[in-house]
Amino acid sequence: MCYVFAYLHRRDLVDRIEGVMMRIAYEVMKKEFERVLKKHGMGEAETVRCASLFAQTSLDGVYSHGLNRFPVFIDYIERGVVKVGAKSSLEGCFGCLERWNGNEGPGNLNAYAAMERAIALAKDTTIGCVALSNTNHWMRAGSYGLLAAQSDCIGILWTNTMPNMPPWGGKEPLLGNNPLVLAIPHGDSPVLVDIAMSMFSYGKMMNYRREGKELPFDGGFDEEGNCTRDPAAILKTLRPLPIGYWKGSGLSLALDLIAATLSGGLTTHEVGKISVEATVSQVFLAINLASLPDRKAIEAKIEETLRALKESEPVEGGSAVHFPGEGTKKTREENLKEGIPVDEDIWKKVCQL
Amino acid sequence: MCYVFAYLHRRDLVDRIEGVMMRIAYEVMKKEFERVLKKHGMGEAETVRCASLFAQTSLDGVYSHGLNRFPVFIDYIERGVVKVGAKSSLEGCFGCLERWNGNEGPGNLNAYAAMERAIALAKDTTIGCVALSNTNHWMRAGSYGLLAAQSDCIGILWTNTMPNMPPWGGKEPLLGNNPLVLAIPHGDSPVLVDIAMSMFSYGKMMNYRREGKELPFDGGFDEEGNCTRDPAAILKTLRPLPIGYWKGSGLSLALDLIAATLSGGLTTHEVGKISVEATVSQVFLAINLASLPDRKAIEAKIEETLRALKESEPVEGGSAVHFPGEGTKKTREENLKEGIPVDEDIWKKVCQL
Repeated sequence: MCYVFAYLHRRDLVDRIEGVMMRIAYEVMKKEFERVLKKHGMGEAETVRCASLFAQTSLDGVYSHGLNRFPVFIDYIERGVVKVGAKSSLEGCFGCLERWNGNEGPGNLNAYAAMERAIALAKDTTIGCVALSNTNHWMRAGSYGLLAAQSDCIGILWTNTMPNMPPWGGKEPLLGNNPLVLAIPHGDSPVLVDIAMSMFSYGKMMNYRREGKELPFDGGFDEEGNCTRDPAAILKTLRPLPIGYWKGSGLSLALDLIAATLSGGLTTHEVGKISVEATVSQVFLAINLASLPDRKAIEAKIEETLRALKESEPVEGGSAVHFPGEGTKKTREENLKEGIPVDEDIWKKVCQL
Repeated sequence: MCYVFAYLHRRDLVDRIEGVMMRIAYEVMKKEFERVLKKHGMGEAETVRCASLFAQTSLDGVYSHGLNRFPVFIDYIERGVVKVGAKSSLEGCFGCLERWNGNEGPGNLNAYAAMERAIALAKDTTIGCVALSNTNHWMRAGSYGLLAAQSDCIGILWTNTMPNMPPWGGKEPLLGNNPLVLAIPHGDSPVLVDIAMSMFSYGKMMNYRREGKELPFDGGFDEEGNCTRDPAAILKTLRPLPIGYWKGSGLSLALDLIAATLSGGLTTHEVGKISVEATVSQVFLAINLASLPDRKAIEAKIEETLRALKESEPVEGGSAVHFPGEGTKKTREENLKEGIPVDEDIWKKVCQL
C-alpha cells in the first residue's frame, strides 16, 4: 500500500488532540469563548461572531485553529497585537474592488466582514473584491470560503503571512506560506480547498518530531541542503519546502504581491520587519453564481464531476476518493451530536482565562 | 550540493532542442508561420497575431509551445479540431464578468482576445473577467499574463485540459493539469508564474526517459502504487503526481469547476468524453493597478520584495535567487540578437508545411 494514501486518511489526526480527550458541546464551547472575549473588552455583536467562528472551526474538525488557537488569540489581545475594539474601515472604492483597512483588529472579524462585503459587491456586479490591509491572522482560512459558498458565490481568498519559507533557490525565509482558499457552492457540502504554500506547517512538523516519525514526503531541506523527510532537520534549518518546489515558491510570491498591492498593505517582506505576525494583507474575491442564467446546469455540472471522482477507482488499499471539503459535513454533524473533541488541558486553560 | 538546485539551473534545458541546433531570426520565423497559416485559410489580421504569438513564445525561450508545437497546431487545423476561421463571440454580460464562446477557433487567438477584453473591462471597473468556453489549447499560457502585465494589470488566468492526472487517492486520470498563470506588472520584467498542476508534464517525463535519467523529484506512481522518480514507470501507469500531492489535486479540481461554471463550458470530465483535447474552458481575470491611487508606492513595494529575494543567500552551491519570469527578458534579448535556437528537423518540417 502506498504510504501516501495511509497519510491521507490520517490527516484528521495531524491536527489531533494531544492530551486526555474529552468532548464539549458546541454551545458550551461558544458560550465559554463569549465569556472570555467579553472579559477582554470585545463588543457585544463582535463577541458573538468571534466566538461562533472559533467554535465552528473546532466543530468542523479544524482543531488547530479553533479551541487550540484561542489562548494564543487572547494572548495577542492582552499584548495589544490584536486591538480588540478596532473595526475595519473603508479606504476607497475602485469599481468592483474595495480597499479596507483592518486597523489591527481581530483577524477573523475583519476577514468575515471583508468576505461579506465582497459577496455584497458580487451580488451587484457578479464579481466583488475586497482587499484588506493591516489585519491580523484570520484563524481558519476556510471559514470565509464557506461563507462565500453559503451565499452562492465562488470564493477565492488568500492572506500573506510573516516570512517563514525560503524562495526556491534560496536559504533565507523571505516568503510566507500564504494560505489560499478556493470554495465552490455545492449544497451543504461545498468544495473547499484550503491550503498553505508550504508542504507542511511548522505545527505538523513538530507533531511528527514529537512522535519520532518521518514526514510522509520531503518537507524541507537539511543542513547539507538536501531534501529531507526528517522533521527535526527541517525545524533546525527553518527551510520548509514549497508545494511543487519552484511552483509553490512562485505562487507564494505572487499571492503576497497581489495582496499587498491591491490592499495597499504590507508585503511579507515588510511584515518580517515586525517582531510578531501582524498587519498582514488579504484578498477576498466573490463571484456570484446566481447572476448566471444557467444556475441549474452549473449545479448539475459540478455534481457530475464530483460523482465521477467519488465513483472512480481508489489507489491500492484505499477507500473511496473524496473531494476537498467533503468530510466536513460528517465531522460537523458528529461533533454536534457527540460534542467537540478537546484536549482537556487546553479546555481547562480556556475556562481559566 | 542539493540535486534540487542542479535541476533549477537545468530548467531551460528541459524544453531543449533535441536534434541539430541552428538559429533562425525572429522575423524569419514569424514570416514562415504567417505563410503556413495563410495557406491553411487563416484571415489576414488573425495570421499576423497567431504567427506573432507562436514566434514570441520561441523568442522567450518556451520552445515547447512555440515552433515545436506549431506542426501539431497545423495538424489540428487540418483535422478540423481547430476551426481556423472561427472567432469568439459574446454570450452574455454579467457586471464585470463576460462570457465568451470560443467557437472551437484557434486557442491562442481566442485567449488573446479574451485577455484583451478582460483588460478593457478592468480599465472601467478595476476588475474585469472573461470566461471563455468551447476554445482550444492556448499554447503558451504565459503569453496572456504578459499581455495583462504590459497593460498595467495583474493577470490571473487558467485553463482546464483533458483528463490527464488522477485525483488524490484515486487511480483514474479524472483531473486535468490545468495550467495557472499569475502575472504582476514590473517594468519590462514582470513577475510571471506559469505552472501546471502536475509536477512534471508528460513531455518532460518523456525527455527524462529518453535520456535514461531519473526525475529530480517524485513525479508519479508506479504500478505498485508507490511514489517514484522513474519516468518510465509513470508513463506506464499514467499517474503523474499533482504539485503538493492532495493540495494540487484540490487546486486542479477547483480551477476546473470554476472555469466550466463561469464560462458555461465543459469540465475536464466532459472534455474527456471527446477523443482529442478540444472545447476547453478558461478564465481571464485582469485587475487594473492604474485604477489605484498609490501606483508609485505599489511599484516600490514590488521592487523591494524582488530585490530582497535577489540579494538573499542562495542554496549550497547555487548562484543568485531569481523571481519567476526574471530570466525571460535576457533570453528574449539574446534570441533577438543571435536568432532563436531551433531543432533543424522541426524547422525544416515547418518550412515544408
